Amino acid sequence: MNIAVLGTGVVGKTLAGRLASLGHAVAMGTRDPSASAERTEPGRMGDPPLSTFLAGHPTIRLATFADAVAEADVVINALSGAITLVVLGPLADALEGKVLVDLSNGLDFTHGFPPRLTVCNDDSMGERVQRALPRVRVVKTLNTLNASLMADPAALAGADHTVFLSGNDADAKATVTALLQGFGWTDVLDLGDITTARGAEMYFPLWARLFGALGTPNFSIKVVR
Amino acid sequence: MNIAVLGTGVVGKTLAGRLASLGHAVAMGTRDPSASAERTEPGRMGDPPLSTFLAGHPTIRLATFADAVAEADVVINALSGAITLVVLGPLADALEGKVLVDLSNGLDFTHGFPPRLTVCNDDSMGERVQRALPRVRVVKTLNTLNASLMADPAALAGADHTVFLSGNDADAKATVTALLQGFGWTDVLDLGDITTARGAEMYFPLWARLFGALGTPNFSIKVVR
Repeated sequence: MNIAVLGTGVVGKTLAGRLASLGHAVAMGTRDPSASAERTEPGRMGDPPLSTFLAGHPTIRLATFADAVAEADVVINALSGAITLVVLGPLADALEGKVLVDLSNGLDFTHGFPPRLTVCNDDSMGERVQRALPRVRVVKTLNTLNASLMADPAALAGADHTVFLSGNDADAKATVTALLQGFGWTDVLDLGDITTARGAEMYFPLWARLFGALGTPNFSIKVVR
Repeated sequence: MNIAVLGTGVVGKTLAGRLASLGHAVAMGTRDPSASAERTEPGRMGDPPLSTFLAGHPTIRLATFADAVAEADVVINALSGAITLVVLGPLADALEGKVLVDLSNGLDFTHGFPPRLTVCNDDSMGERVQRALPRVRVVKTLNTLNASLMADPAALAGADHTVFLSGNDADAKATVTALLQGFGWTDVLDLGDITTARGAEMYFPLWARLFGALGTPNFSIKVVR
């Protein structure tokens, strides 16, 4: 499948690398590809510089956002919540009809960690993205986990934990479910339409306190039922 | 142990009944005991009328809030979030030094289900209760589950799921942990001080969407690590 991953942070790199290793044709989208490709400093999470990452993943193509999206069947938004709408808004025409997997959390770190949610209760990032791109099939998922578990759930408890889906388009959710199963996910729980992204996004404050209590981001939740 | 349960709704009845069956001396606190005792209509959740419940649990004493609290070692707040501070505020002196287990969620149902959170991000019901009662040892717990699973976690997956604790007083948390273990809880996860109640309380919106997707409140989450 042709997949575009928007964003070159730790989430973008981890998912792009995983998708490439599974045989997908992957383009990573960034604002300024040549500047990004030349970057030699590590990422904010201590992740390797993009140049190092790309050298190790020669099949991954680095492109502008618009160029990455053009050929893609599925587009993954791995941008931070703060810039998600700024980047996606101008791509509305290019994204038309495509499946857009939204991973964003609206987080405000100005007062440190844990961050505040910038959107909650009556709205969500998933809904904002869907409203900004009404002709795009938005599926919210994977925002409840750290990057390595998103891409390789079997690294924890043999994948015996849960990932959530929210979206208005059943076919798009089926496409995303298949992608997630390709990553190793066995428990993909469809919460319902895109408004249910409020639930998955408002989990973040609990995730942050669990991160604090456990001292590691390598945990997940299993919905026991 | 002498335990007061404040509130006669489904949560109060379920916990009071469970505690009494475990051999604790239980007083249920209510605003007007004689009016409550005479109530013959079912509760909002279809739970049995209080009179029926009390007839089946003859060791449970029904009392005013103040009277129920007077003798108690541990007080459980099973009131709705909307009236929690209204009831607890005037009990500040009576509660001094005691362990107060706060189960409340601040929920606004005026626009239907799922409700909005009335407090989130920078504050929580747990913190509000602790601020209103600075000389009381508040422990937030059990607010992430429906009543029957709170009291009998082994009814689901042999109790292989997680309950959270938040509070500033280590001894109080140890007391509450022992109570929870008495209910059958095996995975009691201490999130940290009372500010971490923000995490446990902001889980509610996900709980509500899971309830919608699963069609039952008989589910829980296990923190897989």
